[in-house]
Amino acid sequence: MQILIDATRMRSELDTLATFTHAEPVTNGTAVTRIVFTDDDLRARAWLKSIAAEAGLSVREDAVGNTFFRWEGTEPKLAAVATGSHIDAIPHSGMYDGTVGVLGGLEAIRALQRAGVRPRRSIELVLLTSEEPTRFGIGCLGSRLISGTLEPARADGLRDVHSPAKGEAERNTLAQVREAAGFRGSLAEVRLPKGHYHGWVELHIEQGPLLEREGLPIGIVTSIAAPAGYRFTIAGFGGHAGALLMPDRKDALCAAAELILSLERNALATGAIDTVATVGTCEVYPGVVNGVPSKVVLQADVRDTDPARREGVMQAVRKDCDGIRRRRGVTITEEQVNADAPTDCSPQIMKMLEDVCKEDGIPVKKMVSRAYHDSSFMAKVSPVAMIFIPCRLGVSHKPDEYASIEDIATGTRVLALALSRLASE
Amino acid sequence: MQILIDATRMRSELDTLATFTHAEPVTNGTAVTRIVFTDDDLRARAWLKSIAAEAGLSVREDAVGNTFFRWEGTEPKLAAVATGSHIDAIPHSGMYDGTVGVLGGLEAIRALQRAGVRPRRSIELVLLTSEEPTRFGIGCLGSRLISGTLEPARADGLRDVHSPAKGEAERNTLAQVREAAGFRGSLAEVRLPKGHYHGWVELHIEQGPLLEREGLPIGIVTSIAAPAGYRFTIAGFGGHAGALLMPDRKDALCAAAELILSLERNALATGAIDTVATVGTCEVYPGVVNGVPSKVVLQADVRDTDPARREGVMQAVRKDCDGIRRRRGVTITEEQVNADAPTDCSPQIMKMLEDVCKEDGIPVKKMVSRAYHDSSFMAKVSPVAMIFIPCRLGVSHKPDEYASIEDIATGTRVLALALSRLASE
Repeated sequence: MQILIDATRMRSELDTLATFTHAEPVTNGTAVTRIVFTDDDLRARAWLKSIAAEAGLSVREDAVGNTFFRWEGTEPKLAAVATGSHIDAIPHSGMYDGTVGVLGGLEAIRALQRAGVRPRRSIELVLLTSEEPTRFGIGCLGSRLISGTLEPARADGLRDVHSPAKGEAERNTLAQVREAAGFRGSLAEVRLPKGHYHGWVELHIEQGPLLEREGLPIGIVTSIAAPAGYRFTIAGFGGHAGALLMPDRKDALCAAAELILSLERNALATGAIDTVATVGTCEVYPGVVNGVPSKVVLQADVRDTDPARREGVMQAVRKDCDGIRRRRGVTITEEQVNADAPTDCSPQIMKMLEDVCKEDGIPVKKMVSRAYHDSSFMAKVSPVAMIFIPCRLGVSHKPDEYASIEDIATGTRVLALALSRLASE
Repeated sequence: MQILIDATRMRSELDTLATFTHAEPVTNGTAVTRIVFTDDDLRARAWLKSIAAEAGLSVREDAVGNTFFRWEGTEPKLAAVATGSHIDAIPHSGMYDGTVGVLGGLEAIRALQRAGVRPRRSIELVLLTSEEPTRFGIGCLGSRLISGTLEPARADGLRDVHSPAKGEAERNTLAQVREAAGFRGSLAEVRLPKGHYHGWVELHIEQGPLLEREGLPIGIVTSIAAPAGYRFTIAGFGGHAGALLMPDRKDALCAAAELILSLERNALATGAIDTVATVGTCEVYPGVVNGVPSKVVLQADVRDTDPARREGVMQAVRKDCDGIRRRRGVTITEEQVNADAPTDCSPQIMKMLEDVCKEDGIPVKKMVSRAYHDSSFMAKVSPVAMIFIPCRLGVSHKPDEYASIEDIATGTRVLALALSRLASE
């Protein structure tokens, strides 16, 4: 079987997809902002459907916008084989995160078609909705709903946290936003049963520096780190920045500053390279230069390959919060947005990927994914695996995120071979 | 001369003015959000012009929207006497800040008219534009331009910092916003010469707890504290919240947290009750839960009755910034948005106010204003004074800001008597 990847076409398609963006041009790369269900996202989806149709794939969209492109196998009643990723992008980020997996999946299917493959099992390319948590505060919306990890009613009630509206009640819910984007119906119907897919393989840039540093073109992911998301609301007492005297203050932002530093300090204190903690957003109310902050909302992200160690960090942070409350007279409420378990990849698919690469003369590295991916949730409905390719300096979520087209083509080739094997099982 | 204040009408007019708001209803007071040049502000201005016209006042508007309502005196060529304040309100604030001075000024004029006064000098009520810094980052826009304290070209280039647009370049300038609001012409023409007014008296709520605590109905302001505004931009290195390891981070928000705490610590360290420092806004870029912050912009407000002590606080903060830069590998740039000198009120007008109150049997307190006011800048074109009235618990800039109509009427009465005296000089 002769698998030929059309790298020129992939380059062109990646460039086209990067034009569906809200971000301003930059000089150090390609800035992409593509928030789920914005006009940019909807135009990108329409374009993707058009090129998938050219490849003869049928299409199904569910109530949250997950889109299933299907190449029918000779035995369509067997569980299908699937690949996929996401196309949404956080503000001012790059053009490879997620998109390589979606366009790579499409090119893998086209390469198999060109090679004359007639798959036994159907092969699906899945575009998953809102892997990024930008708009609704929780990542992997689409795959969480597929896997039953997120209650449909809770999902529909999620507020558009990316909205500039200051009041919680002024913000639209997912139910409103998805309906406006044309995705109707009950979210309960998004869920798929365990065993729905025979196998799932996601192609993705590493988002870390290891493959590049070691000069290896392919990473085979063994497990995906356990992410947890927290929302802290710090409430103090606001007032006029001139007239409210320092000893009378309960400044919510000063309290938040201590909490931000506590998260950093306690993550570093584990001494483990796999522990990371980040406060990525800080909303200040009333948020004016001459008003003492009365309320601050922080969103924190804590990850570890070891969930117990991650919980240890949070226990230490909670202890610090007690001190902040006591000393400053503020209230701090913690809401756990999500706390997922680490995901182990399928030993069978990992072994098959190793075999495929060995036969093709491609050296591989078995590695942990510290970033989380839709594959974490697809693991509830299928055995899963992930193929990583190098990205320059490990940079991701920024305009200078970069993967070479040669590495992208190699990853796509491995994906095509893997899908072909899985589909023949 | 029989001065009768129509408190019922004032109560009703204050309530009407409070309806021109963007804020949602609250249960603990009246929430007002009236940002300069928004539809709410423009409707409030139109209504104010209509009730000033009923009182027979002529109207002039300048290029930045300062509005001059004039009651012509018998000797109109003499320098006029003036009062005034502002009607813009920060998000989710109260209904008395500024408005008491504007509606009180109008009622003072009407009370003099009803008493049959025919003033020698003309009396003007001035509505000053954007006393609050909410929209353009600098407070007292209108009075700064009147006084020549702000360069017209710099003012026209100020960006709409209240805009939800993330990119600096996407935000409109004052030039664009004021033109859209219907205020055209050169800002250079806003300036008024020194001595333009014979005297200026502003009526305002105290925004502090002292008058209420001491049971006194009137405060005579002796000086207005020196405010300074700073904008700190902290630039680090962003990346993926999962993949960017802790030892490799230059997290801009963690650095900003240290700076926020440095400002608080150094303001407290003076031991002086008149030193206050506030960080009121914290913008995080890219501002997403799973992105390590690459840039943070803070707006800080530092005030003191002693400008040297204020500068001492900033020197200590700058020293801390050096340490933060060194330890964290971030850059911190400081921009001084404004740094104003304290303003001394006119001894002559203060004495006259004391006399007026003494003759009327009203006890007074001479006091410092820790909040700044348009009067700070009007002092460049006129001798100035301020009349304070109590507000409940010293609360201001919040929905539960409250001043009793009896205290408002007393302040308005003192203002009417003062304007009458000044106009006869």
